[in-house]
Amino acid sequence: MISKQGTLSAPVLISPTEAVVMRLLRNQKQVSRVEVSEITGWSRAKTSQVVNNLVEKGYLQEHGDGMSRGGRKPRLLRINGLLGYIAGIDIGATSVEIAISDLNGTIIGIVAEPSDVRKGPEDFLNDCTRILLRLATAHNIHPGQILGIGVGVPGPVDFSRGVVVAPPLMPGWEAFPIRAFFQKSFFSAFVVVDNDVNIMAVGEQRSGGAENVDHFLLIKVGTGIGCGIMANRRIHRGSDGSAGDIGHICADQNGPICRCGNRGCLEAMAAGPAIAEKAMQAAREGKSALLNSLMDKNGGVLTPEDVNYACREGDEASLEIIRASGKMIGDVLAGLINFFNPSHVFITGGIANFGNYLLIAIKRAVLRRSLPLATAHLDISFSQTGPTIGVIGAISLALDHLFMVDDPCGN
Amino acid sequence: MISKQGTLSAPVLISPTEAVVMRLLRNQKQVSRVEVSEITGWSRAKTSQVVNNLVEKGYLQEHGDGMSRGGRKPRLLRINGLLGYIAGIDIGATSVEIAISDLNGTIIGIVAEPSDVRKGPEDFLNDCTRILLRLATAHNIHPGQILGIGVGVPGPVDFSRGVVVAPPLMPGWEAFPIRAFFQKSFFSAFVVVDNDVNIMAVGEQRSGGAENVDHFLLIKVGTGIGCGIMANRRIHRGSDGSAGDIGHICADQNGPICRCGNRGCLEAMAAGPAIAEKAMQAAREGKSALLNSLMDKNGGVLTPEDVNYACREGDEASLEIIRASGKMIGDVLAGLINFFNPSHVFITGGIANFGNYLLIAIKRAVLRRSLPLATAHLDISFSQTGPTIGVIGAISLALDHLFMVDDPCGN
Repeated sequence: MISKQGTLSAPVLISPTEAVVMRLLRNQKQVSRVEVSEITGWSRAKTSQVVNNLVEKGYLQEHGDGMSRGGRKPRLLRINGLLGYIAGIDIGATSVEIAISDLNGTIIGIVAEPSDVRKGPEDFLNDCTRILLRLATAHNIHPGQILGIGVGVPGPVDFSRGVVVAPPLMPGWEAFPIRAFFQKSFFSAFVVVDNDVNIMAVGEQRSGGAENVDHFLLIKVGTGIGCGIMANRRIHRGSDGSAGDIGHICADQNGPICRCGNRGCLEAMAAGPAIAEKAMQAAREGKSALLNSLMDKNGGVLTPEDVNYACREGDEASLEIIRASGKMIGDVLAGLINFFNPSHVFITGGIANFGNYLLIAIKRAVLRRSLPLATAHLDISFSQTGPTIGVIGAISLALDHLFMVDDPCGN
Repeated sequence: MISKQGTLSAPVLISPTEAVVMRLLRNQKQVSRVEVSEITGWSRAKTSQVVNNLVEKGYLQEHGDGMSRGGRKPRLLRINGLLGYIAGIDIGATSVEIAISDLNGTIIGIVAEPSDVRKGPEDFLNDCTRILLRLATAHNIHPGQILGIGVGVPGPVDFSRGVVVAPPLMPGWEAFPIRAFFQKSFFSAFVVVDNDVNIMAVGEQRSGGAENVDHFLLIKVGTGIGCGIMANRRIHRGSDGSAGDIGHICADQNGPICRCGNRGCLEAMAAGPAIAEKAMQAAREGKSALLNSLMDKNGGVLTPEDVNYACREGDEASLEIIRASGKMIGDVLAGLINFFNPSHVFITGGIANFGNYLLIAIKRAVLRRSLPLATAHLDISFSQTGPTIGVIGAISLALDHLFMVDDPCGN
């Protein structure tokens, strides 16, 4: 199959009516013209016109034979996956992961590299552009064939403007025009920028355990603690783009002072750095020979991964630290579950998969504190999308916007 | 103007396409045919056909003259308010308020009566039917002219089925078919049932301070504490209809045991009964001469209203109780604001309007605990709809459903 798009210098635009068919195919993979007509309620004539336009523009292909209902077997429509490509860029504080997919969202190439958001947006995004161009070249893809770029960043985002707002981890990024920056090199691309936990939630919805779930939360526990909120199958970003910023909810009124100035914030008490800090304290106080020896080996420091290792070895002090983190996260989550009543909660992030101990402690706290009605059908589990959830979500978000999925009335 | 609908025995149904025009008019009050065509993007011919159908069915009227753009002044379309009527029923634990409006939502008659949900659904709803029939008769309205009924109940609701689920205050109501019950007497009516705080949030959206607000919370502080959640201009009900049930979020890990079995629930510590209980304790401990004398007068008990009175008299013990309630509500709210990032929070309910003291304490706690980004544009204020917010919301919800406003893609 040869791309029709190779020589284009601007994206092929589709009408809202055409977007209805593209959305349909994004969900159903393939349909016949008769099915398009049945599902949309359009006349045969209108359906034909819309579908023919999309085939002519190269967005759709007709192939194979569908189920016959008595007469000639109908031809099936599907998205022309190789008409163009989508890039997903998942920016972490100290690394970036970049992937390219076809228009069906199937990943063609992926690469992760260390970097540092503290070097500022211009330098960091130049790295991203270089990596993406290299990845594209390796797969014989021309920059003009990239029709959409989804970008996830570790900070609050004003989604409509595509800029970062008051990012604590990203000095110098405030209001930087990420969208325009990428469009310099990828002139055909529609660029969407969102918070990293939001794109993870989109990833979970599109490729993970939440494909048919209306309301769910995705909690990322790592250096910080954040939450992606899916309300009625759409990301809830709130009025300033800061929704889901749960790291500074109070977990203990008598807890230590957090860097935000408040007392007992969840992040300050239960995330990675707090876990490492408590482990070092336990080692110093002689509560764990294993942690003590690990700390000696590491030159006097411990990481969350050391605590994970010690948990797996059955170290009681480490287990206690993880259980305490899980309880605090679960206590806060219990309130959010009463408030939001999701049917699913997915846990992910570097600290999450500590041999089930964290998950079990979270579940126990939620079940004890939430109302029976809110937990009767509640499922709390690990994210099912794996470590590439970020780029998968970024690609999905870009595809959704290319096909106007996020505009439920776009027709 | 004489209703065309008087003799109908079943509601006039409108098509999804026709609903688009009705929604338009519900928001804009009056438009010309040219404007309908411009806003919908329909051809003149299609617009004409849809509008003519609605005029013929009696839903729309043409009247007056709009702004001319050079040629003949266009006639304006508006909803035929007297084609039929809508009833709003706001069920409280010990009372019911019932109103009738025209199809523009303008209230024609309203009545409140004491009752008791504990006598069970059959008896209670028979009371409602009798009151509504009497109100209708007083305004020369035939039961068949009631095209929609919105019902608010003080408990969790499975909205799609229109039934109450596990209601703590409503023994015997579980799964009772409220919708079918009302349709026996009001055979033309489309019946929607929702939680009382949700209908208040709809009331605030339609007639109060939230007409152009995408994301807001409405907090009701009375005997209990509940929250209506508006996400992207739609009520967020959650996966079991229990969203917004914030009364049992933990306000103090060392607080007293709540009737739900957990410790330090917000409702048990900050709502009406807790306020009265603390006031009686203060009186008994000699901390307030005023509360003591009020308690003597009342035969040994105090109500929240007594505390309100004492606050207005400057009684320091009472002020302290209200400030403590406000702080606890504000601390919990701070977490929900970080999570949900609304632009507005509206406070209402019997305890709310205690001379600003509660509101000020809530605001102070939120500003101290929430993240700057989430509070930069946040407005916390009293509900602006007044005591009839419940029936106004119930009527709005019924109207929305009659015109399919809740289905954003209905076209």
